[in-house]
Amino acid sequence: MTGFSAARPFPHEQVERWDAETDVAIVGFGAAGACAAIEAAGAGATVTLFEAASGSGGASALSGGEIYLGGGGGTDAQRDAGFTDTTEALEAYLMMAGGPDADAAKVALYARESLSHYQWLKDQGVPYKGSFLPGKIIEPAEDDTLIWSGSEAAWPFSEAATPAPRGHTIQFMGWGGGRKLMDIFEARVRALGVDVQCDARVLSLVVDTDARVTGLVVRLDGQPRFIRARKGVILATGGFCMNDDMLRRHAPQTLRLANPIGENDNGSGILMGMGVGGDAIHMDEFFTTCPWIMPESLVKGIFVNERGQRFINEDCYHGRVSRTMLDQPGDRVFLLVDNAIFARPLDLARIEIAAVGDSWEEVERELGLPENTLAPTVHTFNRYAAEGHDPVFNKASEWLKVLDEGPFAALELNIRTSFFSFFTLGGLNTRPSGEVLDRAGNIVPGLYAAGRATSGLPRWGHGYSSGLSLADCTFFGRMAGRQAATATPD
Amino acid sequence: MTGFSAARPFPHEQVERWDAETDVAIVGFGAAGACAAIEAAGAGATVTLFEAASGSGGASALSGGEIYLGGGGGTDAQRDAGFTDTTEALEAYLMMAGGPDADAAKVALYARESLSHYQWLKDQGVPYKGSFLPGKIIEPAEDDTLIWSGSEAAWPFSEAATPAPRGHTIQFMGWGGGRKLMDIFEARVRALGVDVQCDARVLSLVVDTDARVTGLVVRLDGQPRFIRARKGVILATGGFCMNDDMLRRHAPQTLRLANPIGENDNGSGILMGMGVGGDAIHMDEFFTTCPWIMPESLVKGIFVNERGQRFINEDCYHGRVSRTMLDQPGDRVFLLVDNAIFARPLDLARIEIAAVGDSWEEVERELGLPENTLAPTVHTFNRYAAEGHDPVFNKASEWLKVLDEGPFAALELNIRTSFFSFFTLGGLNTRPSGEVLDRAGNIVPGLYAAGRATSGLPRWGHGYSSGLSLADCTFFGRMAGRQAATATPD
Repeated sequence: MTGFSAARPFPHEQVERWDAETDVAIVGFGAAGACAAIEAAGAGATVTLFEAASGSGGASALSGGEIYLGGGGGTDAQRDAGFTDTTEALEAYLMMAGGPDADAAKVALYARESLSHYQWLKDQGVPYKGSFLPGKIIEPAEDDTLIWSGSEAAWPFSEAATPAPRGHTIQFMGWGGGRKLMDIFEARVRALGVDVQCDARVLSLVVDTDARVTGLVVRLDGQPRFIRARKGVILATGGFCMNDDMLRRHAPQTLRLANPIGENDNGSGILMGMGVGGDAIHMDEFFTTCPWIMPESLVKGIFVNERGQRFINEDCYHGRVSRTMLDQPGDRVFLLVDNAIFARPLDLARIEIAAVGDSWEEVERELGLPENTLAPTVHTFNRYAAEGHDPVFNKASEWLKVLDEGPFAALELNIRTSFFSFFTLGGLNTRPSGEVLDRAGNIVPGLYAAGRATSGLPRWGHGYSSGLSLADCTFFGRMAGRQAATATPD
Repeated sequence: MTGFSAARPFPHEQVERWDAETDVAIVGFGAAGACAAIEAAGAGATVTLFEAASGSGGASALSGGEIYLGGGGGTDAQRDAGFTDTTEALEAYLMMAGGPDADAAKVALYARESLSHYQWLKDQGVPYKGSFLPGKIIEPAEDDTLIWSGSEAAWPFSEAATPAPRGHTIQFMGWGGGRKLMDIFEARVRALGVDVQCDARVLSLVVDTDARVTGLVVRLDGQPRFIRARKGVILATGGFCMNDDMLRRHAPQTLRLANPIGENDNGSGILMGMGVGGDAIHMDEFFTTCPWIMPESLVKGIFVNERGQRFINEDCYHGRVSRTMLDQPGDRVFLLVDNAIFARPLDLARIEIAAVGDSWEEVERELGLPENTLAPTVHTFNRYAAEGHDPVFNKASEWLKVLDEGPFAALELNIRTSFFSFFTLGGLNTRPSGEVLDRAGNIVPGLYAAGRATSGLPRWGHGYSSGLSLADCTFFGRMAGRQAATATPD
């Protein structure tokens, strides 16, 4: 199968025969591709969906099935729990979460349409129990469906936007509802008559001399097949966390992390998009987390780096705390706890006890740190915690505890050996409509993208919150599908 | 001049008439373009050099004219100063300076050829007095030509590679020898019969259906002209520090910095290279510095962030210290000095006195920091400095001073208002030969690049050292010129 490359499009003029035709060709059967297919087919287009794996799912099926939703007075679940969420607060939070180049157009549209998107999800058959589970949660242990899933209640987010819990999880017993979410989407996709082709790796886009994407080349039964896409191609291929070469060239910090969350997230869609002129942006950004907040009492501990310095308010979203760990010198950080809050961390997290002592000075010594580094950090923290505030890092008072009930312990999180999962946030630059933009800011005709093949709502590792990626995949997947379906056939 | 875009190549088949032909077309008349032209012309190729500005220079002419050189037993200047530099030490230093994805092939070649490159520079007429100026220097104040220009003697570099000063500055009275360097290069370029076209903005590359770059479109006298490049096009266009849109999409941290070092560094060459399939890598990386090390006594102070925490050994290269400032929370960092080492910083640096006090506790209070934050940091530093070491940040003993001679002061460096110069380090991925690689790792036929249009020896802001960019521009400019000149005409 030489002659085909994700990095370079195949010239339209050299296509001798189209093996099949469709209005809209979608590449990738995760949440973004599924939602694009549902909308495109619902709008009357013929749709063919190509998936490299043997079935639907992608990284979406590996997730908790949680979607970031709110605004507009609040969802039913938010209101029942006593939160009157506003569109302004949702928008302000998403702008802050998006970092220094947040996509204001996507954020504004999503904030405005979030409630209707929630309804749409229900209309597809996604069940929500509507029950709120307070506290610091990674995913609900049972089948509750609303949690605090980000840094809403933590500084500085709490100052920028009125806090509300917005993590809406599919009703599912235990962790891992993403598979169920995908099963529901897949049923809808098939009910709408979408032609689903699995074990179908897309090799290349086809582009004409006017730089319009006119179709694609896909490997089916070991043979390259030319597929004409009359209205457009939608790339919903995910990120590049499984492609070590791309990680090295664009996000080398991730090479320290051992647990990519992905299936076929090899960046092929991003490469194909770039090959036809698409601009890929923020390619250095990634989400990472270690599930250190379980049990929740650990959140009352404080993190220090190898210099004995604190570096963040520990009540932030666990992913923001984890991402900030990577900014510290060295590979290790320590979670300091006293006997009152100590609890064994989740096995999965691979967090070790590095030192114990009857005083913080002893812990400092046990860790091999220079004298008067870690200990003064704890004493300063304790002194203010006793007064009920944290003027240095602004941890919220409900998570403040004077760490003075010995014995004391330092739990070690090691970037290279603890469980740090990650996926990439950089990708193609798109309009809210899903239209791919080139490096001059013009549309690449015939090409759309959604989900982690794009740089979307989540595009800043320090601002990620659970549910942001699925929010982006599902909503902007829909937008891309709708836009492609209404395009004039070329 | 519609129809031409840096982002998309012009199709070869649509060229009606070539206005001129050359063997090698070079875009950009900074150091990289000049050195490429000298080698290509010297190898017998006909060469045309296009420069968007009215004359030679680019960012190179804004520099100090300093080139990072050494290894092989040492240059004459190094040996005269008592340093026996080795190729192994140079290579180890460059690998560390290049960060997590240092280009091992370029580093190895440059380390091996560094002495011969020095001779080549002399052969072009670049004068070196050979005199060594010890201490922490930004550029020689008079006409000395060897300085410590990086972090060689500072931890952790000093542990990875035997230190030697390697900043070889052109002999020139005062700062800013880069203009003189360019004048010498320009004289050589013209003596070799290179056709130099100034006020000539290259609008687009020309590419044929085999994806080979066959020429370019340039605006001359207000008209687009088609230039056939029989052997190849060399992009030596510099980085993108003057292109706010590209900065926002790829390196948004730089938006906080007010002083780009560039002339026409609008990223056009990177965009043109990407438009024909070239891979642009490490686009988030940039060099930045504030000239805070003048006078040198300030290096004996210690930096703290807005939390009152130290964050680096202050004897590192000023650019490494400055880059690390941007990693700190907030926009301000403070340089803490006592009366014995206090001196007024360079006016250019725009460093302000933020607080003075008779004790460090008073300085802490004056800055509005919480009690027991900054003061314990200084006390811990002082306690070890009195013993002659710095176990927390590993500052070398020669720069350690107990800060106990009051009154005390905090000098404020503000990321947004102090003088933080910067330029970008991300760019096209090239072989040591200058051949541009596409996203699948294959050569883009007919296309070469050098200097800051590429990601070269300097590709990690935390590891930059003065002279690395000009080393990369001059040496790999030469390699690109030589390779293009020996290409088989297409």
